[in-house]
Amino acid sequence: MALTPGSRPPLRVAVLGCGVVGTEVVRRLVTEGDELAARVGTRLELVGIAVRSLDAERDEVVDRDLLTTDADALVRSADVVVELMGGIEPARSLVLAALGAGACVVTANKALLAQDGPTLYAAADAAGVDLYFEAAVAGAIPIVRPVRESLAGDTVQRLLGIVNGTTNYVLDSMTTEGLDLEQAVKEAQALGYAEADPTADVEGYDAAAKAAILASLAFHTRVALDDVDRTGITALTAADVAWAERTGHVLKLLAVAERARTAEGRDGVLVRVQPTLVPADHPLAGVRQAFNAVFVEAEAAGELMFYGRGAGGAPTSSAVLGDLVSVARHRVLGGKGPVESSHADLPVLDRGEARSRYQVRLEVDDRPGVLSRVAAELAAQDVSIESVRQTPQLTGDDASATLVITTHTAPERAVRATVEAVAALPVVRQVVSVLPVL
Amino acid sequence: MALTPGSRPPLRVAVLGCGVVGTEVVRRLVTEGDELAARVGTRLELVGIAVRSLDAERDEVVDRDLLTTDADALVRSADVVVELMGGIEPARSLVLAALGAGACVVTANKALLAQDGPTLYAAADAAGVDLYFEAAVAGAIPIVRPVRESLAGDTVQRLLGIVNGTTNYVLDSMTTEGLDLEQAVKEAQALGYAEADPTADVEGYDAAAKAAILASLAFHTRVALDDVDRTGITALTAADVAWAERTGHVLKLLAVAERARTAEGRDGVLVRVQPTLVPADHPLAGVRQAFNAVFVEAEAAGELMFYGRGAGGAPTSSAVLGDLVSVARHRVLGGKGPVESSHADLPVLDRGEARSRYQVRLEVDDRPGVLSRVAAELAAQDVSIESVRQTPQLTGDDASATLVITTHTAPERAVRATVEAVAALPVVRQVVSVLPVL
Repeated sequence: MALTPGSRPPLRVAVLGCGVVGTEVVRRLVTEGDELAARVGTRLELVGIAVRSLDAERDEVVDRDLLTTDADALVRSADVVVELMGGIEPARSLVLAALGAGACVVTANKALLAQDGPTLYAAADAAGVDLYFEAAVAGAIPIVRPVRESLAGDTVQRLLGIVNGTTNYVLDSMTTEGLDLEQAVKEAQALGYAEADPTADVEGYDAAAKAAILASLAFHTRVALDDVDRTGITALTAADVAWAERTGHVLKLLAVAERARTAEGRDGVLVRVQPTLVPADHPLAGVRQAFNAVFVEAEAAGELMFYGRGAGGAPTSSAVLGDLVSVARHRVLGGKGPVESSHADLPVLDRGEARSRYQVRLEVDDRPGVLSRVAAELAAQDVSIESVRQTPQLTGDDASATLVITTHTAPERAVRATVEAVAALPVVRQVVSVLPVL
Repeated sequence: MALTPGSRPPLRVAVLGCGVVGTEVVRRLVTEGDELAARVGTRLELVGIAVRSLDAERDEVVDRDLLTTDADALVRSADVVVELMGGIEPARSLVLAALGAGACVVTANKALLAQDGPTLYAAADAAGVDLYFEAAVAGAIPIVRPVRESLAGDTVQRLLGIVNGTTNYVLDSMTTEGLDLEQAVKEAQALGYAEADPTADVEGYDAAAKAAILASLAFHTRVALDDVDRTGITALTAADVAWAERTGHVLKLLAVAERARTAEGRDGVLVRVQPTLVPADHPLAGVRQAFNAVFVEAEAAGELMFYGRGAGGAPTSSAVLGDLVSVARHRVLGGKGPVESSHADLPVLDRGEARSRYQVRLEVDDRPGVLSRVAAELAAQDVSIESVRQTPQLTGDDASATLVITTHTAPERAVRATVEAVAALPVVRQVVSVLPVL
């Protein structure tokens, strides 16, 4: 069956939201119309663009006659709805209305998916239509489709993602320019990589939403935003970054989703967002500036990495248009894409079960016997030591030292208990930082 | 429509070939049967494995009762045929027979696709069934699906691939261990990374087949193996590798597929395989050992990279099983995947049109005026110079020097003409190497 654009009625496409991404999606629909028609097998006809204000300034590629504030009517008249408004409402109601009316939906809305994905998947399933969301995770990088289709015959063991460009930019500036956190955030804001209110990024909420979506896909299990254990980058200092480098690491905010087994033999998944020391020779260490990357460890495939731009109008529009072509092809050729897969239904385990190496940095009295006392506390919790590095502090009056201990792999619970015990030792002045090591 | 394995008849799966990859595919079908059934919506029943010899030694996971030498009968009794024999015949006839009988086909056969893809695509199209081939390019790395689906709404400008693990391993050993080519190939053979006869790898034939497949997908244009301009790694020396490092590069065998426009304004594509100097800070420079990676530059998405294992039984089986689940889902849910897309039908341009920077290494007389004479020849062909580095040779009786010239971007045709003219200069003793720079 050859594709013959023109012989079929066009597909009616509605776009909800006309911000940076919406404008780029409209641009490609307008300027690449012939090429898209050839790829889909029929024309994609833009029938309306829902906006909050008809009078706002717009790029000239946006035909003002297509603007409407009546999103509700628009979604009921479309074959495919592209939701780019973001946020929970009215996006949620509009997506459900679209699915209910039999339209396919393409969305970039990670917050909505992480909070209420199962409701949306069920609505799409009931209507027998596609719900695609490649743009919701890691912008332009194809990761949703590879995980739910390419790796559909494999068993994903672990996913490690740099999925927030803002925090990666900030940490990269701290590493390469020696800035402190506040300076680096200001620089990122000045360059447009961070919002005026950077909370969602620097506190890890954005990364946590993406971690929940990826974990759900990879483990065929429902993982909600609340299931994600989240630590942002706000407590990190220039000294943390410098010590990372000195010990052969790069500090990255990682979204980690992995299969795990408790000490009692219960299988489950662990999903967390946390600043992590990545060895300098690991492929994720080289992900610079605002780039994103997702590293996947699968049983048969081994190690895979997907790298690219995680945000921005044009990159995100690439992912949206790819989904749009896919769902449109299904309309033309029949069939539909994969549905939600949650049959594995694994429990989400407590973060205490997470096993990792850790780097513990202490400020201690600089005198004999300190290391042996600290080491005894680690041994008491069965946390074994991979390496120790003691550096005298040359400032101040009294003799202090920095003690950097890297543990072998141990459960987070044991490391936490150890750190509490170590902090209580009289020779220990301060536990400066505790960071997992990849 | 929920997936309820068990309520549908199983899909009959035939595997052709039971070498390293075939055995791993069989292993996953056997050991992951329940999980695959949950993902597909029905069981995948292995109904037969076509082999050349019934008596050969096999892994114990292979049920000998399923072995048959009658591949022809087997393919006619299956819903899905997995072709892992390799080579042109009998693979070609069996795939066509399977498609003709209405079976979907999953194949890892890059040689067959590069040589006769259009015939196979047409047969699949006529029968209305899927022909999937993720495993044919870059092993476990999802690249076929991302290019033909994720980037279906974007315009790919250029693809740069390290798609042959053997040559990457060899070049990596030459770089890190200072081996010469012959030693490095022997080491790769000893470790199982190179065949006893390494010709297909070291001469670039394997990479060229993959380049043809990727270029066809990316540019919606038929590109055959013969369209690929091919240079292998056999002429490379330890000195080439050392000079690459000294000038801030890593030498890689790259498959390059790009859109181009001739001086006369004709649009087309260029597809080639060639040793290339990759700047040390480019993501492809960090691809070590036998790993593969494909770097994509797309109009909207910007730069993307896909990284992972390009060969081996388990990694390749991951790609095969992913395809198997996809085509099986289509059988269960209806519909089918994308068909061949060759509507753009761009001409394949002559390699002389390829524009790149080049590094030219010369052995010259070490005396005043040499550089000006060489520079004059470049200027005569409108090839401008980005940098020059002259190093006296300390060995030998007469005074010679190594002159390393890096050009600005210029057409290959002009650089070739320049090099011929330079070689004819009396002060030039030898043109040692001419390599493109990424």
